[in-house]
Amino acid sequence: MATLLRRAARVSFSGSLLSAGSRHGRVHALSYFGSNNRNSSTSSKIKVDLDSSSGIAVVKFQGPPVNSMGVDFLTEMAISLDKLELDKNCRGIILTSAVPKIFSAGLDIMDMYEKTPEHYEQFWRGVQDLWLKLYSSSKIMIAAINGASPAGGCLMALTCDYRILADNPRYKIGLNEAQLGIVAPFWFKDSMVNTVGYRITEESIQFGVMYSPADALKIGLVDQVVPEDKVFSTATETMEKWFDIPDHARQISKSMMRKPTIDRMLANREDDIKNFVGFISKDSIQKSLGMYMAMLKMKKG
Amino acid sequence: MATLLRRAARVSFSGSLLSAGSRHGRVHALSYFGSNNRNSSTSSKIKVDLDSSSGIAVVKFQGPPVNSMGVDFLTEMAISLDKLELDKNCRGIILTSAVPKIFSAGLDIMDMYEKTPEHYEQFWRGVQDLWLKLYSSSKIMIAAINGASPAGGCLMALTCDYRILADNPRYKIGLNEAQLGIVAPFWFKDSMVNTVGYRITEESIQFGVMYSPADALKIGLVDQVVPEDKVFSTATETMEKWFDIPDHARQISKSMMRKPTIDRMLANREDDIKNFVGFISKDSIQKSLGMYMAMLKMKKG
Amino acid sequence: MATLLRRAARVSFSGSLLSAGSRHGRVHALSYFGSNNRNSSTSSKIKVDLDSSSGIAVVKFQGPPVNSMGVDFLTEMAISLDKLELDKNCRGIILTSAVPKIFSAGLDIMDMYEKTPEHYEQFWRGVQDLWLKLYSSSKIMIAAINGASPAGGCLMALTCDYRILADNPRYKIGLNEAQLGIVAPFWFKDSMVNTVGYRITEESIQFGVMYSPADALKIGLVDQVVPEDKVFSTATETMEKWFDIPDHARQISKSMMRKPTIDRMLANREDDIKNFVGFISKDSIQKSLGMYMAMLKMKKG
Repeated sequence: MATLLRRAARVSFSGSLLSAGSRHGRVHALSYFGSNNRNSSTSSKIKVDLDSSSGIAVVKFQGPPVNSMGVDFLTEMAISLDKLELDKNCRGIILTSAVPKIFSAGLDIMDMYEKTPEHYEQFWRGVQDLWLKLYSSSKIMIAAINGASPAGGCLMALTCDYRILADNPRYKIGLNEAQLGIVAPFWFKDSMVNTVGYRITEESIQFGVMYSPADALKIGLVDQVVPEDKVFSTATETMEKWFDIPDHARQISKSMMRKPTIDRMLANREDDIKNFVGFISKDSIQKSLGMYMAMLKMKKG
Repeated sequence: MATLLRRAARVSFSGSLLSAGSRHGRVHALSYFGSNNRNSSTSSKIKVDLDSSSGIAVVKFQGPPVNSMGVDFLTEMAISLDKLELDKNCRGIILTSAVPKIFSAGLDIMDMYEKTPEHYEQFWRGVQDLWLKLYSSSKIMIAAINGASPAGGCLMALTCDYRILADNPRYKIGLNEAQLGIVAPFWFKDSMVNTVGYRITEESIQFGVMYSPADALKIGLVDQVVPEDKVFSTATETMEKWFDIPDHARQISKSMMRKPTIDRMLANREDDIKNFVGFISKDSIQKSLGMYMAMLKMKKG
Repeated sequence: MATLLRRAARVSFSGSLLSAGSRHGRVHALSYFGSNNRNSSTSSKIKVDLDSSSGIAVVKFQGPPVNSMGVDFLTEMAISLDKLELDKNCRGIILTSAVPKIFSAGLDIMDMYEKTPEHYEQFWRGVQDLWLKLYSSSKIMIAAINGASPAGGCLMALTCDYRILADNPRYKIGLNEAQLGIVAPFWFKDSMVNTVGYRITEESIQFGVMYSPADALKIGLVDQVVPEDKVFSTATETMEKWFDIPDHARQISKSMMRKPTIDRMLANREDDIKNFVGFISKDSIQKSLGMYMAMLKMKKG
């Protein structure tokens, strides 16, 4: 019954959202990736691979050693996500990492240290932009988390519609900013409240808790924990299953859920930038970061 | 200790809420059901049976084949609920089905196909009215879910204070609108968020998930799963237990919890009607529904 | 990695928040408790014991038979919390009871019976004040719940950052106001929603549910259930662990989470007082309370 109407709906929606043809990879004249079914676009930090026959785009972080979210990462992600958003051949996006053992270590500390206020402002606007693009994407977003994901790494996972984490006890996940003496902004917090609820978020961001895969599953921070070599295949299987749902209805439902959170961020965006620039420019914070980086250097040297 | 004060409170509240006498079925002059302890009122789609000695009213859906929520169903429900709300002999209401295997299949597709905008408007206002009456009822509402309850069927269950589902794997429950290419309105969404939280609702309404009894229990979409022949008796036992609580305190507490959700619906009611009429009048949606109904007819023929 | 920055941050924050020295109990010139490492302050209902070497203050309720929250209790608590809030030697507070088998039985019924409207107003303002001080405390607050905690007792626990309950089936916990024919105010409700979510709160405050330790743990009303003789040591161990987090980041995160709830209470504070005074002054409520107290007296006599 549902299947029948689903097929009918898919046809009727095809004009505005996707053509039945394009779903099978036959027609996709305007793909920015070129003319083959399997197209990929590589920049230094991000690799995008869209399979037009399946409708799945894989966005891979490839910025060793830890996929830090610096200005380059943010810019390349923004461009890639904008293109995919407009590409009718793409119905879903899988975020994953090409770097072993790490999904992403989060925001790049280098962009927060000894820079000008203008740099801090530009950097923070880039972080906000990335969140906005990820959180408001009309595509089905799945995080295939194949490594540790603290702070900003966790945030990217939180923006997805589904999170699959590799079953490796070293792959911890969480908004651990407080451990470093910094504070997760309100829209990090909102993303987490929307995922695991108020109470767990309150404890989590106060004490910077990092969760093991087992604990992350238990509190709902991830939806599935699977063996490391099954993370990606589980992501594609989940995606294929959800492609049965007409895009139009799914997109309206997703937007209805997320609009209040996105609107709150947009309404407070400039204040949030000012807060960040003021906080990070403090001597005490800069001193902390400096000592931290000196220690890292000594460790390496 | 609590029991003692409870008895005292019951007496002191009796003037405005219910008389001690009526609780035992001795005095209930104005009952619209007549003068017996056990009174029933039957219309074509709904059967109401109030036992004045217990204070429990049973509202049974009896519109085969699937208890569709069409104009008649909505009208009869509205009248029955209004009467019960005013009836001091009634302290609690059990919603259940007289049709085997189905609680309710939800909104009637016939009221959404090839009708005038005026019809769509009247229909949608009726759906809103039903939700308002159920969700704001001062009575203790228990859903004795003895069959499948997709979409609108699930919504009626969500408005109750407690949900008991029969342990039959075919009795799935969920807001599955997205599977049919349509969208659950914001107040369906709010009712679900209030029951299972934001995250499960987000996944659920995007992908139109239908839950088995075991999964529904796990996520809190229902409060209890019991053998099919115990659904009704569990409902009455739960109700009797809760009758120990003074009505006045319970009603104020219920209202305090639900008022913001009801106010949000009332504030956006007319916009919601416009949205529905505009959406359902679209050629693409009508075509989908038409194809769906043609397929159903072929299947039967 | 995190540990390194943590140490750096601790030093850099020390100017405004706490000195590294004071953390080890060496320097704390302005402590209102005197000049020893272990100082205590006792009034009739509350005993405060601050160990400056650890940074932990223990606030013990010692008002037998049931640690009722009457005017004296509220006043002493307010003074103690104000002092601790300003004391840089104090980084965390443990709330616990010196009375066997009871954490606190909640608001004192004597302050709600046969008093003047002025008394009711002053009393309610005191209850609001206590909640405000507890819920907005910048310290790490841990409830070491070593006895039953109905109503206001539960509320005090709800304001903490972590709740540890003794594993004794008689130590039930919950907002059971409805059982007594009275209503938990909106900020009790908000505190519970923030802890266990909307759905459980709705059922809980409508029907005045008291939870066993096992159930309280299951729904998240407490964070840990431990043997009775381990409650206090678990509280101190948890506190020590969390002292690793820089205070500044933790405090900002806590404030970000709680500010909306606190602001809602402040905005509606005077209306809430009017509501309480009006409700408690009703003849029917006074009669209930009178009967309840007469029964208690007979039981004792």
